[in-house]
Amino acid sequence: MNDRAIWPASMGALTRFEPQSWRVNATQEVSYEVRQVDGIFTPNSLQLITCGKAKPCSRQVIVIDAHVDQIYGDEMRAYYAHHRADVSILSLSVSEESKDLDSALMIARHIETAGVLRRSEPVVAIGGGVLLDLVGFAAGLYRRGIPYVKVPTNAMALWDAAVGIKTAVNALERRNRLGSYHAPTLALLDRSFLSTVESRELSNGMGELLKLAVIKSPRLFDLLERHSEMLLLTRFQDAIIAPEVIGLAVEGMLEELAPNLWELTLDRCVDFGHSFAPLLEMKALPELLHGEAVALDVLFSCRLARARGLLSDRDVHRVVRVMKSMQLPLRHRFFEQPGLLQEALEDTMRHRDGRQRLPLPDGIGACCFVNDVDAHAICAAAKEMAHADA
Amino acid sequence: MNDRAIWPASMGALTRFEPQSWRVNATQEVSYEVRQVDGIFTPNSLQLITCGKAKPCSRQVIVIDAHVDQIYGDEMRAYYAHHRADVSILSLSVSEESKDLDSALMIARHIETAGVLRRSEPVVAIGGGVLLDLVGFAAGLYRRGIPYVKVPTNAMALWDAAVGIKTAVNALERRNRLGSYHAPTLALLDRSFLSTVESRELSNGMGELLKLAVIKSPRLFDLLERHSEMLLLTRFQDAIIAPEVIGLAVEGMLEELAPNLWELTLDRCVDFGHSFAPLLEMKALPELLHGEAVALDVLFSCRLARARGLLSDRDVHRVVRVMKSMQLPLRHRFFEQPGLLQEALEDTMRHRDGRQRLPLPDGIGACCFVNDVDAHAICAAAKEMAHADA
Repeated sequence: MNDRAIWPASMGALTRFEPQSWRVNATQEVSYEVRQVDGIFTPNSLQLITCGKAKPCSRQVIVIDAHVDQIYGDEMRAYYAHHRADVSILSLSVSEESKDLDSALMIARHIETAGVLRRSEPVVAIGGGVLLDLVGFAAGLYRRGIPYVKVPTNAMALWDAAVGIKTAVNALERRNRLGSYHAPTLALLDRSFLSTVESRELSNGMGELLKLAVIKSPRLFDLLERHSEMLLLTRFQDAIIAPEVIGLAVEGMLEELAPNLWELTLDRCVDFGHSFAPLLEMKALPELLHGEAVALDVLFSCRLARARGLLSDRDVHRVVRVMKSMQLPLRHRFFEQPGLLQEALEDTMRHRDGRQRLPLPDGIGACCFVNDVDAHAICAAAKEMAHADA
Repeated sequence: MNDRAIWPASMGALTRFEPQSWRVNATQEVSYEVRQVDGIFTPNSLQLITCGKAKPCSRQVIVIDAHVDQIYGDEMRAYYAHHRADVSILSLSVSEESKDLDSALMIARHIETAGVLRRSEPVVAIGGGVLLDLVGFAAGLYRRGIPYVKVPTNAMALWDAAVGIKTAVNALERRNRLGSYHAPTLALLDRSFLSTVESRELSNGMGELLKLAVIKSPRLFDLLERHSEMLLLTRFQDAIIAPEVIGLAVEGMLEELAPNLWELTLDRCVDFGHSFAPLLEMKALPELLHGEAVALDVLFSCRLARARGLLSDRDVHRVVRVMKSMQLPLRHRFFEQPGLLQEALEDTMRHRDGRQRLPLPDGIGACCFVNDVDAHAICAAAKEMAHADA
């Protein structure tokens, strides 16, 4: 074979293999910033109006959760008026049930109508995880990808949806079955939004904190064990513990995501709590929120881990106690049905290319992967789920 | 500012800027192969059954154009039976009018029903440009991207749609308004499919050959000038000229695409013929085929180039003569309406981030970019379009 490098280039190389075959090798560089900030709608704050650039934008295209718009809309409009920026605002009611292609298309139409330039006018998404996923999905597809900025407004979004590059819509009766990897240019995390969030939404978001703590961070687990009740009560508005908890969670997530942004390896410890939950929460809609389902999956997985000697009874009891202090549910009938749990695991195995790759805690704050969870183990853990305090 | 590299890694690095800001830098590597092959359904051929891997697949999930299935379906099924492979086949009627989200969703449902593994079971797309774009779009979104293989069956697809990594659907009344960059693992170019293609489809595909020749390759232009009639008559089945023409076209396209796969630079010479056409062909649906619209755009742009002294009268006349030999239309009323042409250019400017970045031939076979085409120039060129032979 007579290979010929037609030219190698910094961003992509083309090689011809005689007589009539070519190989393209290329690398795409992605860079984005995640920033904890205070009071993004404070008139003299430049965080939002510059969107990570050197100069303020003269106009911004915004998609905002309708509920958030009700609470913060006046403040937001005053902010942009102060900066003399034109705004095109789409105020969208979203929920897990409307996280679909139709909603994404509505967002794309808003972007089209506003006539944004393809590269230099980032769309600003202000809302919870569902809204951020939807705007990211639409921005990823519109003209094959335009920049966007994430402004999370609930707990789940603040330390989960806003931190990574995955976007998604629900489709084919499955959660997040269609999606993309589309990095925001910037994520602005302003925990002051949590002051107006419902308690159940806060607890829901804490499900993802629990996940990360149990699988990765003894320090975060310790903080949650001591302060979850306070954090819930003060809505993460205290000046000491809340920033530390959020910082630990965000940095922990980023440590896991950054070297594996496109999920080249499917052994992902941040998939802990996401092995059985995806199918079950879709079947339970709208009964279970995402973080509630994740927490139940965490508990179920902890019981699997204990049966294998990876956790002690005391460890599981600590997890149960933290879940209680987070006001997360300890039981759901779907997590007590071995057949359903098995079906969920099988779908997840297709997602993990045919293997279980089940992240389980190896002691609290450490992770291992197993591939041999059988029907018997699922049955036993499901039985224990019916006795939440056991 | 107290920067700290938390860890640099081969695939992604995370840096913390004190106190609470993080930057993720990562690179994604993409590699794919484009191969000219003969008789992919010949029983002893391994090209399709291995899909670029070392071993034959034991099953394949296939999406095939219904019209192609009518002609080649028996041969294809016999091929897979010979290799004792299970197949899940979706036979789909497609057209530019049905190149939409609904069709993409049907493909995604086929993939879901077949239960493909996320990484190790490439979906095989067999069809023209519309089908390849649709399958690529669906495969790009399904579980955030699964592998796929392109088997182009018409002229346009053979040296255009199959060669790059762009996918798309029509949406918001605009051509390819939603899409992605999702590289196939492999493209198998088998020109024997062209033996059963309608003449108008062949001419349509030749519109893209014309584009590439005029903007990039004097050698290709020369071959087309001498052999277009023969190529059309023999349906690219001769053993000497057709493989050379296809090889030149594919290599020329890849030379332009490989260093700019994600269109970081929007000055793209392969966008020649795609400046005014996208809007006009959507408005003209189903009257104009894509390659016909591209050829008209090529001719219109050549007239703009001649007015600036970039081409001679003789050059334009040569282009007209090649178009005639390709049996491509020389006129369409939309290309004679300055208002429409202006509107098309304005939409294209948004696509090119606010500038014209208009690729024009600088002599036949070379390219330059201009940013100052005004209403007067458009008017004059539009007037000339009404006299095709001028």
